[in-house]
Amino acid sequence: MSRSESPFQLDELASHLGGKVRGDGACLIESLATLEEAKKGQLAFFANARYLNQLKVTQASAVLISPEYADAAPCSVIILDNPYLGFARASHQFDPTPDVCAGIAAGVQVHAMASVSATAQLEANVTVAEGAVIGDHVYVGPNSVIGRNCRLDAGVRINANVTLYDDIKIGENSLIHSGAVIGADGFGFAPNAGKWVKICQLGGVSIGKDVEIGAGTTIDRGALSDTVIEDGVKLDNQIQIAHNVVVGKNSAIAGCTAVAGSTKIGAGCTVAGGVGITGHLNIADGSHITAMSLVSKSVSKPGAYSSGTGLMPSKQWKRSVVRFRQLDDLAKRIKSLEEKIETSKG
Amino acid sequence: MSRSESPFQLDELASHLGGKVRGDGACLIESLATLEEAKKGQLAFFANARYLNQLKVTQASAVLISPEYADAAPCSVIILDNPYLGFARASHQFDPTPDVCAGIAAGVQVHAMASVSATAQLEANVTVAEGAVIGDHVYVGPNSVIGRNCRLDAGVRINANVTLYDDIKIGENSLIHSGAVIGADGFGFAPNAGKWVKICQLGGVSIGKDVEIGAGTTIDRGALSDTVIEDGVKLDNQIQIAHNVVVGKNSAIAGCTAVAGSTKIGAGCTVAGGVGITGHLNIADGSHITAMSLVSKSVSKPGAYSSGTGLMPSKQWKRSVVRFRQLDDLAKRIKSLEEKIETSKG
Amino acid sequence: MSRSESPFQLDELASHLGGKVRGDGACLIESLATLEEAKKGQLAFFANARYLNQLKVTQASAVLISPEYADAAPCSVIILDNPYLGFARASHQFDPTPDVCAGIAAGVQVHAMASVSATAQLEANVTVAEGAVIGDHVYVGPNSVIGRNCRLDAGVRINANVTLYDDIKIGENSLIHSGAVIGADGFGFAPNAGKWVKICQLGGVSIGKDVEIGAGTTIDRGALSDTVIEDGVKLDNQIQIAHNVVVGKNSAIAGCTAVAGSTKIGAGCTVAGGVGITGHLNIADGSHITAMSLVSKSVSKPGAYSSGTGLMPSKQWKRSVVRFRQLDDLAKRIKSLEEKIETSKG
Repeated sequence: MSRSESPFQLDELASHLGGKVRGDGACLIESLATLEEAKKGQLAFFANARYLNQLKVTQASAVLISPEYADAAPCSVIILDNPYLGFARASHQFDPTPDVCAGIAAGVQVHAMASVSATAQLEANVTVAEGAVIGDHVYVGPNSVIGRNCRLDAGVRINANVTLYDDIKIGENSLIHSGAVIGADGFGFAPNAGKWVKICQLGGVSIGKDVEIGAGTTIDRGALSDTVIEDGVKLDNQIQIAHNVVVGKNSAIAGCTAVAGSTKIGAGCTVAGGVGITGHLNIADGSHITAMSLVSKSVSKPGAYSSGTGLMPSKQWKRSVVRFRQLDDLAKRIKSLEEKIETSKG
Repeated sequence: MSRSESPFQLDELASHLGGKVRGDGACLIESLATLEEAKKGQLAFFANARYLNQLKVTQASAVLISPEYADAAPCSVIILDNPYLGFARASHQFDPTPDVCAGIAAGVQVHAMASVSATAQLEANVTVAEGAVIGDHVYVGPNSVIGRNCRLDAGVRINANVTLYDDIKIGENSLIHSGAVIGADGFGFAPNAGKWVKICQLGGVSIGKDVEIGAGTTIDRGALSDTVIEDGVKLDNQIQIAHNVVVGKNSAIAGCTAVAGSTKIGAGCTVAGGVGITGHLNIADGSHITAMSLVSKSVSKPGAYSSGTGLMPSKQWKRSVVRFRQLDDLAKRIKSLEEKIETSKG
Repeated sequence: MSRSESPFQLDELASHLGGKVRGDGACLIESLATLEEAKKGQLAFFANARYLNQLKVTQASAVLISPEYADAAPCSVIILDNPYLGFARASHQFDPTPDVCAGIAAGVQVHAMASVSATAQLEANVTVAEGAVIGDHVYVGPNSVIGRNCRLDAGVRINANVTLYDDIKIGENSLIHSGAVIGADGFGFAPNAGKWVKICQLGGVSIGKDVEIGAGTTIDRGALSDTVIEDGVKLDNQIQIAHNVVVGKNSAIAGCTAVAGSTKIGAGCTVAGGVGITGHLNIADGSHITAMSLVSKSVSKPGAYSSGTGLMPSKQWKRSVVRFRQLDDLAKRIKSLEEKIETSKG
């Protein structure tokens, strides 16, 4: 089954996804949709019991569903143990992104000492600097800049307007979104008589395979050795990764999170959006940090961690803010009351 | 009165703004300035009683002012009910941005199957992909990239180094600032045996008319249906809008705020800078969220909301932070003291 | 001693750095490394007593070190009063960035009314608009855009994919990283009948000398007068500086911090990452703000300031969040208990 040659027969999709059809296996699926918005010719998925009411009235031609809920569907189904995973896999069949089409567009500048695979595609106005090596089936979108000695392994996709500084290594099948900047100088200065003396950032950035890096995300080069993003890591948009950070295998970080220099995030972590992690920390494998938390100490035990306060009407919030400033005093007054009560009893 | 043909006579400006001159209507206004910095030949505005002392000594040739304060000005005035609005309107007269000048610069690449209005202006190195439609009087700044099947309606302005992925629709007179990335993949993955399987993001982005989108702001494409920015919305710099978010009509969001997937922000909201709004929430029309708040539950009633704590000397702050961790215990000890006191009275 | 002509003799480096060799002054140094990772042919530095154990077993050929620790090194040393500063200076000797190489690459568009020094280097696809003045030895990286009437003084370095709007002035030897956007419109609108009327942003941006601006950082143009970044300021990645902000001499701001309109940050301040500073404030010279703090009032006294709460297991955190909402009530109950105890004693 070739990608994007929709419509597909339901039977054909089921066999591709390793599921079992109940209902009309010959029905044609043109696209995917949510339970709520799906119409005839569309395939939806049911992966959360919360949406049972939507399932019961869906207009979809078919639904990806687990065995225990299959009876509740008002239409044909593909039965799978993990319908959400099935949906993820199905989405690739309907992805309209054109295949990489080997060739070099107008306005591209490739340095004489760079190497570009004959199967790579470089879009308009891309520049490739000295010593760079562009692997097989690599795609580089319009106006992206590839620095000296960069190495893009097979199947890497760099979208438009990406900047790779010098010495960036990117493993197979990784995807970099527009506006990302990989390898800018880490923020390193030595104070001297009220001014700052720059510490030249002499390391690079090493990115594993199957990594995704979101739009506008910045990953600084290391001061001496490399900043490292391990295999399978997923970084959302506008994340800031400082010099010499290590993000461990298959960790996922949501938008607008910032990680300060030399911090090591373990494998299999999830970090929600807007989190700040200060420098030189270790975050244990399997840690989960909730949105907008400040992490200023290492996390040695996997688990879920949070900081901050919850939303309140601003007027009441102002009163809590005042009291937060008095908290130590309030705690001491409680202690003192407890002693007085003890004494009066005695 | 044509834009930018300054100097203007005060009378001329007043008539354009719908105000009434008191003083020298023939005086020439060359530019705008604040009350504090204005000199001869400049027009200032008085919109906040807090600046009354500055008004009294301003060197401006004229001031935009409301009737009740007109007597306090030491110079000519244009009397208006809403001087701040008058100032906003006057600013357009002094805007030096050149008019759109139809034509296609050197290095531009327009796909044979794209359509570009004869009145549009494409600056150097712009690329326009297959199926894109560029409307009348559209401006696209240098090095911007317009993806497949994008539709830019009349009067849209895209500044330099903007990236529009495929399937982005932008309504009349909207303005996109440099470094913005519209339509990168939403952050969607299904977990599978410790790894992440990408969910292809098959929706687009639909942006209304009279929208402004700040520098470095990222708006992800929808997973299945579109991410939606309604008419009149104003987004500041470095905002992150995740897939399938809806931002309602005329809402304004300040810099560095992040909105997670599928959240719906109502109409007429203001969200201050650095706010984080988690996914799948509904924020009521007319809500106002203060700076750096975390919104992790839906807001059903309009009003002002906040979270976080206030600034303190770091040394005292550390003590409050320790006590915050003990808050539940402290509250229970208060309860216990109350019971003991009750008992001892009894 | 010319930059990047390594290896250097240790004697030669010591004399360049103003230090004194103890040990083998003829040994060759090829590169820099940390104490922990250094091997033969590498120079490390010892600047923090915490790493004394690493010093004792380092494999480095030599170490930059202060007099009091020199005896603890197992290798040759360069003795300096400030080894960290020595390291910063040494890093410049090993920086592989090529010198500016005068010339204009293919695809560059320079307006007939712009002025470019014969010693400047413009990389591929750079555009330079009308009235811009590019000084001696300026470097502009691929695909960067220089707006009308910009002025880049001698030695300025603009990396790839930078956007300078019109009227941006940058002082000598300043460095702008990729994805930075300088001079986009400040976020200014007057409300009118539920909609927003744009206030055209008529000021520019004035950046001093020896300034560094990180990747993806945005600095808005002023509404009427300029936004100002003074000499020696260091801004990390993804910082947002709103219109008419002033950042004072030699202040350093870490990643993802946002400063709202018209705020004045004094000289010699340090602001950590993820901080939010609201508009129209004054921050005293020599203030230090810790990570992710919200600054919503002016700071009149230098010192260290913080806000927020510390990281906790999410389950306990939720209980503290509930109690934070009750803080004012809790405080009143303590007060009431104190009065009752007083009374019962009386």
